[in-house]
Amino acid sequence: MEPIALCAQARCIKLVLTNSDGVLTDNGVYYSARGEEMKRFSIRDGMGVERLRNKGIATGIISGETSPSVVKRAHKLRITELHLGVKDKAAQLREILLRHQLQPNEVAFIGDDTNDVEIMQLVGLAACPADATDVARNVAHFQCAVRGGHGCFRELAEFIIASQTADSPGRQRVFLERQLLRSLP
Amino acid sequence: MEPIALCAQARCIKLVLTNSDGVLTDNGVYYSARGEEMKRFSIRDGMGVERLRNKGIATGIISGETSPSVVKRAHKLRITELHLGVKDKAAQLREILLRHQLQPNEVAFIGDDTNDVEIMQLVGLAACPADATDVARNVAHFQCAVRGGHGCFRELAEFIIASQTADSPGRQRVFLERQLLRSLP
Amino acid sequence: MEPIALCAQARCIKLVLTNSDGVLTDNGVYYSARGEEMKRFSIRDGMGVERLRNKGIATGIISGETSPSVVKRAHKLRITELHLGVKDKAAQLREILLRHQLQPNEVAFIGDDTNDVEIMQLVGLAACPADATDVARNVAHFQCAVRGGHGCFRELAEFIIASQTADSPGRQRVFLERQLLRSLP
Amino acid sequence: MEPIALCAQARCIKLVLTNSDGVLTDNGVYYSARGEEMKRFSIRDGMGVERLRNKGIATGIISGETSPSVVKRAHKLRITELHLGVKDKAAQLREILLRHQLQPNEVAFIGDDTNDVEIMQLVGLAACPADATDVARNVAHFQCAVRGGHGCFRELAEFIIASQTADSPGRQRVFLERQLLRSLP
Repeated sequence: MEPIALCAQARCIKLVLTNSDGVLTDNGVYYSARGEEMKRFSIRDGMGVERLRNKGIATGIISGETSPSVVKRAHKLRITELHLGVKDKAAQLREILLRHQLQPNEVAFIGDDTNDVEIMQLVGLAACPADATDVARNVAHFQCAVRGGHGCFRELAEFIIASQTADSPGRQRVFLERQLLRSLP
Repeated sequence: MEPIALCAQARCIKLVLTNSDGVLTDNGVYYSARGEEMKRFSIRDGMGVERLRNKGIATGIISGETSPSVVKRAHKLRITELHLGVKDKAAQLREILLRHQLQPNEVAFIGDDTNDVEIMQLVGLAACPADATDVARNVAHFQCAVRGGHGCFRELAEFIIASQTADSPGRQRVFLERQLLRSLP
Repeated sequence: MEPIALCAQARCIKLVLTNSDGVLTDNGVYYSARGEEMKRFSIRDGMGVERLRNKGIATGIISGETSPSVVKRAHKLRITELHLGVKDKAAQLREILLRHQLQPNEVAFIGDDTNDVEIMQLVGLAACPADATDVARNVAHFQCAVRGGHGCFRELAEFIIASQTADSPGRQRVFLERQLLRSLP
Repeated sequence: MEPIALCAQARCIKLVLTNSDGVLTDNGVYYSARGEEMKRFSIRDGMGVERLRNKGIATGIISGETSPSVVKRAHKLRITELHLGVKDKAAQLREILLRHQLQPNEVAFIGDDTNDVEIMQLVGLAACPADATDVARNVAHFQCAVRGGHGCFRELAEFIIASQTADSPGRQRVFLERQLLRSLP
C-alpha cells in the first residue's frame, strides 16, 4: 500500500484487533511442573489500549490458543472483545463486524503467523511485529519497527492515533513519516 | 553439504528430533526457593510441531536433562517420543530408528551443545540454532537464522515442509534459497 | 542541554526519582491464571540506589501503575518515597519538593512514556532509557545507552555520582565524556 | 595481559570462582507480591561447571547478595564452595585459598560489577561478561563475547579447558585464537 493510502486507511479505523502470542507477547510461554504457568505482556501495549479507548477506538483479541493468563490480562485492560481458541479467525471477524455494524476497512488487525494471514487479507489495515513470520510479513500493510511483546501493538496504536488527529503538528508528521519509511518494502 | 544435497536430504525426513534446552528454550532455567521452577518455550515452535504433524512428519525430544516443565510442554504438543535424562543420545537414536523402522537419513536432529554432536553426526539432516556452541555449529548441515527458544525449531520445520511440498510456487522457492544462503559457511 | 550545563545540573541533584515500568523493568508484566504475577527488576539498578544513598542522594519511585511486586522491590532497596497509582505525577512531584524543601533543579527524574513527559519538563535533570518512547526521548536531557530493566537507572546514578565527585581522575572524566557523547542528539 | 601470558595463566587454573548476579544471571530478579521469587540461570553454564569438574577443576560462587534460588541452583550443580551475602569478597578469597592450599594465580574469578573489582585484582585470571560495568571491564584480563546469564561462565570454562588440553588440535587452537582476539582491547 502506498504511504498516502496507508494514512488514509488508518484514519478509517474504529476497531483494532490483535492476535495474542507473538504480538502481545514475544511468543514465550512459561511452563512449570504444573503445565502452562505464565505469559509475559508489555505495559506499553496496555497504554496503547487505553490511549485508543480515549480516542473512541475499540480493541479486541482473537487468538487460536486458549490461555488463562491472556484472559486475566484482557480483563485488566478492559478488553471485552476477547476470543480465544478460535480455529477460524476470518469467521470470527465476520461475526464481530456484523455485531458492531462495521465495514472491514474500519478494522485493523495485527498478527504474526500463518493462522493470521487470512484475517489480515480481509481487514482494511493489516499490521505485523518486526519479528513476524515471512507469511505474515508478506500480507501486512504496516510492519512495526518493534518486536512482539515489546510494544508493537502500541506502535500500531500510535500510528492510528496520529493519523486521526486532525491538526497534526510537526512532531506528529515526523512520527508518521518515520513509520511510513519503516513500513515500505 | 551442498545446497542441492541439503534440499534432497530434507525431502527424505520422516521424523524430526530435537534437544530441549537451547533449542526449544533459550537455555534459561528459572529457580525459586523451591528449586527449578520454570522454563520458557516458544508458541512458534509449537506450531512447527503441529504443521509437521499435518504433513505426516513425526517429532520427538531427546534431552540430557530431566525437567518436569518439558514433560508438560511435550504433552501439550502431543509429542510422544519424549526421552529425558538421556546420557547416550546416539544409543537412544538407534532404539528409535529400530522401533520406527527408519533409516538415519530419514531423521533430522536439531541440537546446540557438546552432547548433541554425536547424534548430529549420525542423522541425515543435522541442524542447530543461530546461537549454538561452536562444536554443534561445526557438525550442523543447517544453521538456523533464529536463536534457541525463539523459533529455531519452527525454522527447521518450515525448511523441511517447503522441501517436501511438490509444487513449490515462487514464494517457497525464495524461502528455500534464503535458508540455503544462511546455511552456507 | 549543552554537555557542560548537563554536568553542572547533575552536580545539583539531591533526589533521584524514577518511573517503575520501562525504567526499573523492561515493561514486561508476567500473568498467570491468577492475574498479574511478577515483574523483573535489575540487580544492577539496586546497586545504583545503594551507591546514591552512600553519597547522600535519596531515591524515590513515582508510577502510574499499582503493582505488589514493585512494593516488595522498593522495600528491599529501602526506598521510602514510593508513590504508586499516581494519576498526576507533576502534582506528586510538587508534594515531594515541598516536604523535602527541595528546588526542582535539585531533582532528577527518569521516565520512558507519555505520562512521564510533564514531570520530566519540571525537574532539573530529565533522563530516559535507550528504548524510551519518542515523546519521552524528546524531553530528556540525558538519554541512557542502556535499556529499561537492564541497568538504565544505574547508568543515570553513575553519571550523577561521577559529576559530584570533586576530584575526578582520568577514568571518571572519560566516563562522563562518553555519557555526554551518547546523550547528544 | 598479552595473549600468550593469558594462555599460560589459564593453564595454571585449579579453581574457578564466580559472582552470581550478572554472570550466572542477566542481573534479573523476578518479584511477586511475596517478594523475590525467581532468578534465571543458563543450562549452558551448568554444563561448564560439569565439564570443569571432569577436568579436575573445582568451581565456587561468591556473591554479595543472598538469594534462595542461587542456593538451589548451586546444589543442583553440586557447587559446594557457596558463599552468599559476602561483604568483603577479597577476605573470602583469602579464606578459600588458605583452606584449599592454593596460590592466587591458580584461581580464576569472573565478575561484572563494582564489588568484584578488588577480588578480580587478586586472582591470576580475571574475567567479565560482555555486558559488565566499565569498572569490571577495566580490570578483567579476559572479556567474554557472551553476556551474563547467557553462557559467559561456560565461555570462560571452555577457554580454561582448551588451554589445559595438552595436544590442542586445530579446532581448539582456532577457538583459543578467537577468544584471544575478543579479549584484546
